[in-house]
Amino acid sequence: MSPSTLSLETRLNAGEVVIGDGGFVFALEKRGYVKAGPWTPEATVTHPEAVRQLHREFLRAGSNVMQAFTFYASDDKLENRGQTLKITGAQINEAACDLAREVASEGDALVAGGVSQTPSYLSCKSETDVKAIFKKQLDVFMKKNVDFLIAEYFEHVEEAEWAVQVLKTSGKPVAASLAIGPEGDMHGVSPGECAVRLVKAGAQVVGVNCHFDPMTCVEAVKMMKAGVEKAGLKAHYMVQPLAFHTPDCNCQGFIDLPEFPFALEPRILTRWDMHKYAREAYKVGIRFIGGCCGFEPYHIRAVAEELATEKGKMPPGSDKHGMWGTALEMHTKPWVRARSRREYWEHLKPASGRPHCASLSTPEGWGVTKGHTDLLQHKEATTTQEMQHVLQMQKKGKSTA
Amino acid sequence: MSPSTLSLETRLNAGEVVIGDGGFVFALEKRGYVKAGPWTPEATVTHPEAVRQLHREFLRAGSNVMQAFTFYASDDKLENRGQTLKITGAQINEAACDLAREVASEGDALVAGGVSQTPSYLSCKSETDVKAIFKKQLDVFMKKNVDFLIAEYFEHVEEAEWAVQVLKTSGKPVAASLAIGPEGDMHGVSPGECAVRLVKAGAQVVGVNCHFDPMTCVEAVKMMKAGVEKAGLKAHYMVQPLAFHTPDCNCQGFIDLPEFPFALEPRILTRWDMHKYAREAYKVGIRFIGGCCGFEPYHIRAVAEELATEKGKMPPGSDKHGMWGTALEMHTKPWVRARSRREYWEHLKPASGRPHCASLSTPEGWGVTKGHTDLLQHKEATTTQEMQHVLQMQKKGKSTA
Amino acid sequence: MSPSTLSLETRLNAGEVVIGDGGFVFALEKRGYVKAGPWTPEATVTHPEAVRQLHREFLRAGSNVMQAFTFYASDDKLENRGQTLKITGAQINEAACDLAREVASEGDALVAGGVSQTPSYLSCKSETDVKAIFKKQLDVFMKKNVDFLIAEYFEHVEEAEWAVQVLKTSGKPVAASLAIGPEGDMHGVSPGECAVRLVKAGAQVVGVNCHFDPMTCVEAVKMMKAGVEKAGLKAHYMVQPLAFHTPDCNCQGFIDLPEFPFALEPRILTRWDMHKYAREAYKVGIRFIGGCCGFEPYHIRAVAEELATEKGKMPPGSDKHGMWGTALEMHTKPWVRARSRREYWEHLKPASGRPHCASLSTPEGWGVTKGHTDLLQHKEATTTQEMQHVLQMQKKGKSTA
Amino acid sequence: MSPSTLSLETRLNAGEVVIGDGGFVFALEKRGYVKAGPWTPEATVTHPEAVRQLHREFLRAGSNVMQAFTFYASDDKLENRGQTLKITGAQINEAACDLAREVASEGDALVAGGVSQTPSYLSCKSETDVKAIFKKQLDVFMKKNVDFLIAEYFEHVEEAEWAVQVLKTSGKPVAASLAIGPEGDMHGVSPGECAVRLVKAGAQVVGVNCHFDPMTCVEAVKMMKAGVEKAGLKAHYMVQPLAFHTPDCNCQGFIDLPEFPFALEPRILTRWDMHKYAREAYKVGIRFIGGCCGFEPYHIRAVAEELATEKGKMPPGSDKHGMWGTALEMHTKPWVRARSRREYWEHLKPASGRPHCASLSTPEGWGVTKGHTDLLQHKEATTTQEMQHVLQMQKKGKSTA
Repeated sequence: MSPSTLSLETRLNAGEVVIGDGGFVFALEKRGYVKAGPWTPEATVTHPEAVRQLHREFLRAGSNVMQAFTFYASDDKLENRGQTLKITGAQINEAACDLAREVASEGDALVAGGVSQTPSYLSCKSETDVKAIFKKQLDVFMKKNVDFLIAEYFEHVEEAEWAVQVLKTSGKPVAASLAIGPEGDMHGVSPGECAVRLVKAGAQVVGVNCHFDPMTCVEAVKMMKAGVEKAGLKAHYMVQPLAFHTPDCNCQGFIDLPEFPFALEPRILTRWDMHKYAREAYKVGIRFIGGCCGFEPYHIRAVAEELATEKGKMPPGSDKHGMWGTALEMHTKPWVRARSRREYWEHLKPASGRPHCASLSTPEGWGVTKGHTDLLQHKEATTTQEMQHVLQMQKKGKSTA
Repeated sequence: MSPSTLSLETRLNAGEVVIGDGGFVFALEKRGYVKAGPWTPEATVTHPEAVRQLHREFLRAGSNVMQAFTFYASDDKLENRGQTLKITGAQINEAACDLAREVASEGDALVAGGVSQTPSYLSCKSETDVKAIFKKQLDVFMKKNVDFLIAEYFEHVEEAEWAVQVLKTSGKPVAASLAIGPEGDMHGVSPGECAVRLVKAGAQVVGVNCHFDPMTCVEAVKMMKAGVEKAGLKAHYMVQPLAFHTPDCNCQGFIDLPEFPFALEPRILTRWDMHKYAREAYKVGIRFIGGCCGFEPYHIRAVAEELATEKGKMPPGSDKHGMWGTALEMHTKPWVRARSRREYWEHLKPASGRPHCASLSTPEGWGVTKGHTDLLQHKEATTTQEMQHVLQMQKKGKSTA
Repeated sequence: MSPSTLSLETRLNAGEVVIGDGGFVFALEKRGYVKAGPWTPEATVTHPEAVRQLHREFLRAGSNVMQAFTFYASDDKLENRGQTLKITGAQINEAACDLAREVASEGDALVAGGVSQTPSYLSCKSETDVKAIFKKQLDVFMKKNVDFLIAEYFEHVEEAEWAVQVLKTSGKPVAASLAIGPEGDMHGVSPGECAVRLVKAGAQVVGVNCHFDPMTCVEAVKMMKAGVEKAGLKAHYMVQPLAFHTPDCNCQGFIDLPEFPFALEPRILTRWDMHKYAREAYKVGIRFIGGCCGFEPYHIRAVAEELATEKGKMPPGSDKHGMWGTALEMHTKPWVRARSRREYWEHLKPASGRPHCASLSTPEGWGVTKGHTDLLQHKEATTTQEMQHVLQMQKKGKSTA
Repeated sequence: MSPSTLSLETRLNAGEVVIGDGGFVFALEKRGYVKAGPWTPEATVTHPEAVRQLHREFLRAGSNVMQAFTFYASDDKLENRGQTLKITGAQINEAACDLAREVASEGDALVAGGVSQTPSYLSCKSETDVKAIFKKQLDVFMKKNVDFLIAEYFEHVEEAEWAVQVLKTSGKPVAASLAIGPEGDMHGVSPGECAVRLVKAGAQVVGVNCHFDPMTCVEAVKMMKAGVEKAGLKAHYMVQPLAFHTPDCNCQGFIDLPEFPFALEPRILTRWDMHKYAREAYKVGIRFIGGCCGFEPYHIRAVAEELATEKGKMPPGSDKHGMWGTALEMHTKPWVRARSRREYWEHLKPASGRPHCASLSTPEGWGVTKGHTDLLQHKEATTTQEMQHVLQMQKKGKSTA
């Protein structure tokens, strides 16, 4: 952290808006550096220029947080998910921290190290085993002296509590973020109760990330805030949603949508959708506002532009953007110039160009979660027998729909 | 051109598939380096790392062509479009050529220099004036020794002919690409006749780029090919369409869609749409197959993967991609693992998640083109009076619709 | 009631399914005999052949109830709603009872007389005044000796209680049906509590009608049943929903949809949607199953066909219908013959043929109800001043949406 | 024809607008009197009150033509299509003429007798055989002294010519109407050429009916008119389209849509769509303007209201309708009263309430027609073997789509 950069707690305690960054796995998958399926972040070692460039773009877009690209870099995950190079989780995470720090130093940003849910938990390993995985990742973050820690993308609050308990041993600020919506975690624990448990476990910031669209995530955090306040506790709040519209999701989020992960394009939010999201998040009292899968740099810039008055400044990247489309004043066609105004973009309902597609999907809904045999993790790819089982389950699901 | 890299003509004469790259202005606008409206490419000078990175991603995706990022870098455009930095078109174009060459040398790619339609033509300047602009750009390309030249994004075949005539003086191969669909150019010249005129002007490769979705562009090139063959001429064919679905466009293409340029997200093609595009383009006899606005690296990779058998190899970036989703075999949820097969993705009709939006828009349709006073270009931003005029024209357009 | 026709209570106590009829105002509006806006039923006097024919069609379709077409025939409504002929409410209702009885005698059907919410209640008249209106209508029903009574289309449970209290003085069975969804009545009384109050007021059958689509109405009745059972009471249940899909409605139902009442066509349910509705209503324990606005005879026939096994017989009109499309076996085109099977129709997702229209609307949502000055009823048509007020309210509604 | 009723030719020669009626098979199918599949009109004998009532409703709606309900009442069709009652085509057609005449006498309407395409033609019977069928039907029309004759719903102009040749022997005016769109008849004969052939065969009025939506049909008739005028001939023009939106149809029309015939509801036109249709038809020069499948009485009334100025009077049924929704001025809710204006309804884009359905379908496209073995007609229902063949053909069709 450069001397002039304020800590996360100082900022949030002062009521400052902290802009997060966007999700790296989806953005780098589209750029050719992450493999969908295993989703592992070895690019920090093999293609650092690509990871560095994405950090820079988010910094330009106004991000105050550079999350080290360490998602799923636990060794059990790397081993489990087809990672064949001989690169360890520690190597990946160290490189990730260095890249995040390098770019953070170029602007007004903090470096965060993160842990997320483990295959071990889903496969019912013990608390000790699971905590050991978090500890191994934390060791790297401490060695690299990150500015704060995030426990994010947990579908079960219990595992998130374990993560927070491990992370808080570091003395660094801890933010905890679940991949849940208003219906609560995979065992049905409500957002309010989840938040209370995370605060009690030691998190200074609580919220949700991934799995749902911005408005749904904001709603879930609103419920968290109500829960925390009702319990007489105090916390700061964060939200880092998808950049996809997901009104048709059930409790497990976008993973269950038929379009996940390779046909989500028609659901991508516009920058104008992001203005509404940022305003709503702010109104609800959330101050750490960022993004997850689907967010591109221009999405974060829109968040930063919407909150520019509250922040007291525009993001650097706005030198290449006219707020609300004003730069279209210089377009060659007069009817496009006529779009250089807020009213136009705020009310536009964009067409999909896909008249043979419906607007909503029917998500999968197996209702299985941690502990179910269908979710026991293994290293091997899907077998023919497993595939048969899945197709049967889907057929059954449809006939009762 | 590295010694082992074959020339464009050698490749096309041998029937080889040449994979183009994607559009830089849209991709870099989303990354924060190009301003929508003026769309000028000064990032080659101010942020070379961002331009270089995008070139690298397309190279990894399988592109055999690195188009120097010189779009709209003519001085009349730079002057006209709010570019306030003191950077000349020559500086931008030289830097663009250097970046393209640097990355091309890292793989199997050619460097192309391009010119496109000028504000001067729309404002009815003389043939001599317009050609002088092209010549100035060509001088840079010759100094930097690009491998071939592209005259692209012309809405009027006449201006494209002038460009080809200038470019062919260089002795380099010339490809000419119009921004038209099956209805022909803005003066109603059919695709077939356009192609004949371009071939006669000296183009070795003819085709279309931008303005329409892949299937529409392929259809237009098919009509070009029929025209050229009927005239007893010979040519190679190219196509570099949008990565947006545009079934509702009229003859002027996606610029007239209400969503242009800031709300096109729901129209973005999936990688699976790209497989269909690449196959169809190949079937029609097109061998230079690339993309324009909206194409991200993964779109080009999908084109390269679809034609991998014909090319004899997979693109480098496929080390991070399972063809037809096969890497999902290693996903944590069994129902997502069940999506690791071609049949699933090939038949999926993706939902938009936007039930309050229609699937098609009604485009603007003023029917004005080169020579109309509404299209006289000026340096100043839109005036209030002009805006009134536009809104009146739009109201009139709707009442007669 | 013909000697062989069993009473409503006998049937429901025996667990028999009683098929209702469809809504007359919408059906006769389309046939040219009811004026949308006032919606008054003077056609029973002026065009008895049209009313008789519609009764006959519902009888053929399987209806066991002929509801006399007396909706909104209270004198205050007739006076209030532009009815200029010198026909009294009593005359209309007497003619309605005669027509219903005439057709009921041709088959296995009961005659019902109905009352519904009054402008007087919305304008805050006293309980005594409102009850006097119901009593005046009841006098006709008693004179004409209908088989049972229905208090239906009430948005406020309080007014429905008053109606039930008046109707039960007759000694006839009383069914009470609210125009509410799962959110409860216009004052926020939950479906469960509404049902309890209606049962306590003396209704033997309770349920909902109009305002929402079938699945929403069934859900509301399910909540009513849970409320009644929780209160340790007993009742039978009825449902007579719209034949329009209304997933986008708020608590006031389809009246607030922008399409009401003249552009609801794209929302009309197919006969196959009706099969699902009938099955679901039956599963939930509802035994009086009919329809309201939008139901045409073929919709009722589909309900009767779905429940033919439970009823022990097919409706008479099924001599002109192959269950699940089987009569298509005799179509001239082989690909249409291939549609003569249940699986085809059960899974078909019908297209709208309207690519420029969205799938959901944003309903009005003023949140005003009984007692609000905006709802004071008057005889005069809307004034310019009132219209201004409405447009202002709508603008306000949108800006806060 | 009552003494005061002018003949079809007198009216059309005077430039008067003649309003047709709507289709009986679809309307009566929904009312329970026609069986979809065979579609035969025995209801004229078995349920005359239902047929009479529908005639009356169209008369009230403004129809100047009562088409005797004789569609598909040729004996070969009756025999072929599962008609098991011992009622002959002659009996059905005589009853149909009597009903049409009875109602026509109650207002300002002409009686028309019609013939349409025969299974015999599709099965390649001889000209003599096919003409004999038409002659048999004509004998009834002459005995009943209809006012004019219509040869309608022909997919092949050749068969329509045969019909016209038979009908004109009567000396009555003959109107000829094909079930084609702008692509022409099933053998690819263009609308213009079809029209010329029909005029030469002796038709005074030519046009199209059924198979496509109003705007498509008007377009086809426009092409017919251009063809007739180019050939230096003279004719009057008629159009009787579907009341379904069919932008996704191929050349064989709505029969090929997956929704035909039992799930077309979302495609039904609103009354406001009908205003646009009537105006467009009038502009093009068509003066016999009516409807076919899907038209309900209120659709015809909308046509008559749109052309009331040209007709010099409103239809009788408009006493129950406020033009452009004006009667909503008397609705109970102020926001519904605000809809009592043309601008509101003219620009409304109605939602489907079906977010899981697409807006367009992919029609079947076998490309088989008269003479193909798949279309040989037989009396028996579809065999299992035929069904297998169909499913194979469909699978093949999809894989090449």
